[in-house]
Amino acid sequence: MVRVGIYGATGYTGLELIRLLRRHAQAQIAWGSSRSYAGQRLSDAFATVDDLPLVDESEADLAAVDAVFCCLPHGVTAPTVRRALAAGVRVLDLSADFRLSAADYQRWYGKAHEAPELLPLAVYGLPELHRERIREARLVACPGCYPTSVILPLYPLRRAGLLAEGQHVIADSKSGVSGAGRSLSLKTHFVEANNNFSAYNIGRRHRHIAEMEQETGLRLTFSPHLLPLNNGILSTIYVSLKPGTHEDELREAFAIYRDEPFARLLPTGKLPTLRHVVGTNLCLIGIQPVDVERGEVVLVSCEDNLLKGASGQAVQNFNIMFGLPETLGLL
Amino acid sequence: MVRVGIYGATGYTGLELIRLLRRHAQAQIAWGSSRSYAGQRLSDAFATVDDLPLVDESEADLAAVDAVFCCLPHGVTAPTVRRALAAGVRVLDLSADFRLSAADYQRWYGKAHEAPELLPLAVYGLPELHRERIREARLVACPGCYPTSVILPLYPLRRAGLLAEGQHVIADSKSGVSGAGRSLSLKTHFVEANNNFSAYNIGRRHRHIAEMEQETGLRLTFSPHLLPLNNGILSTIYVSLKPGTHEDELREAFAIYRDEPFARLLPTGKLPTLRHVVGTNLCLIGIQPVDVERGEVVLVSCEDNLLKGASGQAVQNFNIMFGLPETLGLL
Amino acid sequence: MVRVGIYGATGYTGLELIRLLRRHAQAQIAWGSSRSYAGQRLSDAFATVDDLPLVDESEADLAAVDAVFCCLPHGVTAPTVRRALAAGVRVLDLSADFRLSAADYQRWYGKAHEAPELLPLAVYGLPELHRERIREARLVACPGCYPTSVILPLYPLRRAGLLAEGQHVIADSKSGVSGAGRSLSLKTHFVEANNNFSAYNIGRRHRHIAEMEQETGLRLTFSPHLLPLNNGILSTIYVSLKPGTHEDELREAFAIYRDEPFARLLPTGKLPTLRHVVGTNLCLIGIQPVDVERGEVVLVSCEDNLLKGASGQAVQNFNIMFGLPETLGLL
Amino acid sequence: MVRVGIYGATGYTGLELIRLLRRHAQAQIAWGSSRSYAGQRLSDAFATVDDLPLVDESEADLAAVDAVFCCLPHGVTAPTVRRALAAGVRVLDLSADFRLSAADYQRWYGKAHEAPELLPLAVYGLPELHRERIREARLVACPGCYPTSVILPLYPLRRAGLLAEGQHVIADSKSGVSGAGRSLSLKTHFVEANNNFSAYNIGRRHRHIAEMEQETGLRLTFSPHLLPLNNGILSTIYVSLKPGTHEDELREAFAIYRDEPFARLLPTGKLPTLRHVVGTNLCLIGIQPVDVERGEVVLVSCEDNLLKGASGQAVQNFNIMFGLPETLGLL
Repeated sequence: MVRVGIYGATGYTGLELIRLLRRHAQAQIAWGSSRSYAGQRLSDAFATVDDLPLVDESEADLAAVDAVFCCLPHGVTAPTVRRALAAGVRVLDLSADFRLSAADYQRWYGKAHEAPELLPLAVYGLPELHRERIREARLVACPGCYPTSVILPLYPLRRAGLLAEGQHVIADSKSGVSGAGRSLSLKTHFVEANNNFSAYNIGRRHRHIAEMEQETGLRLTFSPHLLPLNNGILSTIYVSLKPGTHEDELREAFAIYRDEPFARLLPTGKLPTLRHVVGTNLCLIGIQPVDVERGEVVLVSCEDNLLKGASGQAVQNFNIMFGLPETLGLL
Repeated sequence: MVRVGIYGATGYTGLELIRLLRRHAQAQIAWGSSRSYAGQRLSDAFATVDDLPLVDESEADLAAVDAVFCCLPHGVTAPTVRRALAAGVRVLDLSADFRLSAADYQRWYGKAHEAPELLPLAVYGLPELHRERIREARLVACPGCYPTSVILPLYPLRRAGLLAEGQHVIADSKSGVSGAGRSLSLKTHFVEANNNFSAYNIGRRHRHIAEMEQETGLRLTFSPHLLPLNNGILSTIYVSLKPGTHEDELREAFAIYRDEPFARLLPTGKLPTLRHVVGTNLCLIGIQPVDVERGEVVLVSCEDNLLKGASGQAVQNFNIMFGLPETLGLL
Repeated sequence: MVRVGIYGATGYTGLELIRLLRRHAQAQIAWGSSRSYAGQRLSDAFATVDDLPLVDESEADLAAVDAVFCCLPHGVTAPTVRRALAAGVRVLDLSADFRLSAADYQRWYGKAHEAPELLPLAVYGLPELHRERIREARLVACPGCYPTSVILPLYPLRRAGLLAEGQHVIADSKSGVSGAGRSLSLKTHFVEANNNFSAYNIGRRHRHIAEMEQETGLRLTFSPHLLPLNNGILSTIYVSLKPGTHEDELREAFAIYRDEPFARLLPTGKLPTLRHVVGTNLCLIGIQPVDVERGEVVLVSCEDNLLKGASGQAVQNFNIMFGLPETLGLL
Repeated sequence: MVRVGIYGATGYTGLELIRLLRRHAQAQIAWGSSRSYAGQRLSDAFATVDDLPLVDESEADLAAVDAVFCCLPHGVTAPTVRRALAAGVRVLDLSADFRLSAADYQRWYGKAHEAPELLPLAVYGLPELHRERIREARLVACPGCYPTSVILPLYPLRRAGLLAEGQHVIADSKSGVSGAGRSLSLKTHFVEANNNFSAYNIGRRHRHIAEMEQETGLRLTFSPHLLPLNNGILSTIYVSLKPGTHEDELREAFAIYRDEPFARLLPTGKLPTLRHVVGTNLCLIGIQPVDVERGEVVLVSCEDNLLKGASGQAVQNFNIMFGLPETLGLL
């Protein structure tokens, strides 16, 4: 049994972790921390059937755990992560703080990284790309929700050398509102978000572009949109192949996912929908050829932003790190 | 052309008034006031196609208007209403401040009324019950959204003497989220309210009971619930008739609404749904007999909480007060 | 490992069973039957990640299973159930066909029962009331979704003798659209049901009243409503207690659920919401006292209509029948 | 007063026309036709407060009207339109049957046009492009919902010569479910469409591409998606400008819409959302520059698919045809 702690247990990713770990045969939650709800029980604070005493971060006992999930906001995790590592505890960080190089972090987040000495320890926690390094990692930086949905369909094409040179890939993504967290805002007020749909931070403005470009080596235009539903991301991705590339070659490139438990290419003629994946840890990918001569193709990917896009992927990484079956607690 | 001002123009009832008055052939908005957005234009602050300069309440020119709609929170309207009346401007107040006697206000709102001297001027603005008094009123207290949906079906039965004595009427009401206004709260955060449904303040706790009992003379148990949609109230009302009362007699009692433009009894066998009424100023009522011998019957009423339940009814009252066709701007 | 078959595997209750049994450590699905999709694989027909070959009912191999879940429409199950029982296979039926006496079935479903000889075998599958009989049963009639949400809160009060005599209990229930199944209708067309809310079959017309009255011995008025969401039932229940009954006595009556894994009374001052229970097998119950002198109280119960209201409860019964831990596959 | 008839009055576009014309000071509905509901009144068949006797198409009196709105499915309108024109009645057709040349119709709809002799009479009913020809037209082919949202933002750029040569424009569009009409299907069943989001017919497969290319002279990849809401289309459009084109030049190109009542460019830094436009006849457009050197820009447009995308635009055309103020009944 691996003992774990959860920093920031009462945000949406923290609550989802608690729900997943309840069903996990080899993990036991020792504590959850919360700034706002320390001293209460989880079920007092929220409409949930899970229960857990919530402690202040300062009282979280690192000696009682083998690993911690860190669900704190980006920009404030450095002291927590440093302390945990120093105590010999392995860290799964769900913030954006350890996903990028110090230079890229500075560029996209607009300030110097607060723990650059830890960056060499960090592994980008996308198992389909970095499984072996995750196995041994002391610090895993779990990917963002949008990047997971964009990198997984692009990586095999890039790796197989099928993409035209010098192109600008377009990723038009649509996410449920839980991706924006539980902080209150007019934009996520029910009356404003319901029956509504909107684009935001489109072009080259959203910070998740940094991860997408780092992992794929491609240049992207990225357009996130807000869907009137709770969970799920669908990305529609427009790429240019080398002219004359046939669908067979694309499909062959995806053979690298053949044994992946949670990344899957759908058969010819099928496109994924959110209904396929919500509540699962899957990223499903569909291919829609447009024009073979011109090399035009559209990829569609779907995932649950709180599972494969966040907490589910964190548990997948956890399983890898501790030598457990990778699907434990995730089926 | 009647010139009007709107205090609290940027809440949901204020915005709905602006939308209605845009189409109103005999009203012209001179100004809207807003605490948070004074100095901006409406279309800068909100996703709306209506436009209006927003002024601070202190700059709202009472000399420029014949009437004001007051969409301020309850408990703070007294100085504003007093000033408007003193300037000879007629007032349509949408708060709860002038709907009750001073004693009932004290009892249900837990503090002394701040302008008891104005209460004798106030008329409860439900046209189906008080049209003649509204016509001459200087101050009309527009009813709450829940009370409108509960009083309109009960009033004819009470008036016709069909109700059993000493009973406790049960009103089980369900409202869209716009009824809770635009103040941010976890309860009305999209992720929390979507796919959810909940009861709140049930029993004898919701303040709207005071209006319902004042206007019907009945004792009520009232259970409000929050629906995952923006607009609309459906009330399911359980009453005991004098045993042996037939559906015909109930229907005959509703003859008093025969010429009403906005209160309507549906034919035998039909019950209203929110889809009938959202976007209209109608309150539709259906009758479901249960057991004639025992006198059991269920009434179902539907309205748009922002229209017949608030701003639409305010415009209806405005039309009555200024001698205009009652349906102007409301069809 | 218990081998099971599922008749009617592609309706919402069938799909939910497949999802639950995938995670169940002691059950293995041998086959699923489908009239419309026989010969296809589940994942070809639906947006699901589960997979299963679908066979025609005539090809469903009873020798290969220890139990069958029967998710067929009511009125057509008799031959199937009879055949399974004759083959020595234990049956969990999710239709309404074996819940009532022959006389009540005739009265509420308007035709003679087609397998009256099997009725003595059938046990009403509400574990909180009939656990011991379920253990040995060859045929378990799983309760309807509405009845589960109404019987569980009323049963303890009735059993403790706290209810006033001769009363007519009012159950005002609200259900998500999945309760209406996957048959297409204008009422459940997205554009019609979204943003809408409606009452239907209110009074003494809905057939589920029969089960409620059978199990509680009370007379009910029952008003079902359709919520614009997929899963969940909330019932608001109005009862008259013997005058002077205090909340403590009510709470004490619920002590019989103290060790129940899936029926739970919330603490004083708390009411359940759908968000608490959707995705779980729980029925949560809250008490709202109204007037102790008059004996007025409101009960609120919540459940997921596809879980505790259907497929989850079926798995709970399955666990009991086969001597497995009752919560297996349900946490 | 202009007298009008509505063929196919009970589909979503027909019902929306009825709602609009109720408020229209210069139009009077003489009749509505319906295949399924002939002989009934509108309010008997639907949850609406509008009322109208429904006749069979064969009984629709062309002598009683000056114009007809034709809301029939594509492929079956030829006899109806021919008969109306022969009777001297002007026709506003909302189907796809008169929008394209005979050759394009054959290519995209897969069969020969059934009334090619009428095509020379037809004017494509997008007022911003063809107002003068609409004025005199006997037959106006109202544009599709998606094309309106794609053509209006692209046309000014094309006209001003700002677009790079030989490019493939990408239009990623998202529509509410009412765009799929009221025919029942599993895809539009509430439980399937709610909480879901999906792409369909993406690439070069959707027939609306024909109109888009005809009116803009551009080649497009078009990806429609289905949003879990009733009304609204948002299109995110990716174009390549001539390198070095500045936002000012784009904005200047949109000056041709300066006096348009229903097509509007938002100010710098603002993007439209569905909430801006639902319930209005507006198409709002926003510009998001991405990279001036490379000429990359994203356009976002929003409209209500049943208003500017269908029935509202039809009324706008109607007003133009009959010399009425263009905004009559549409504000």
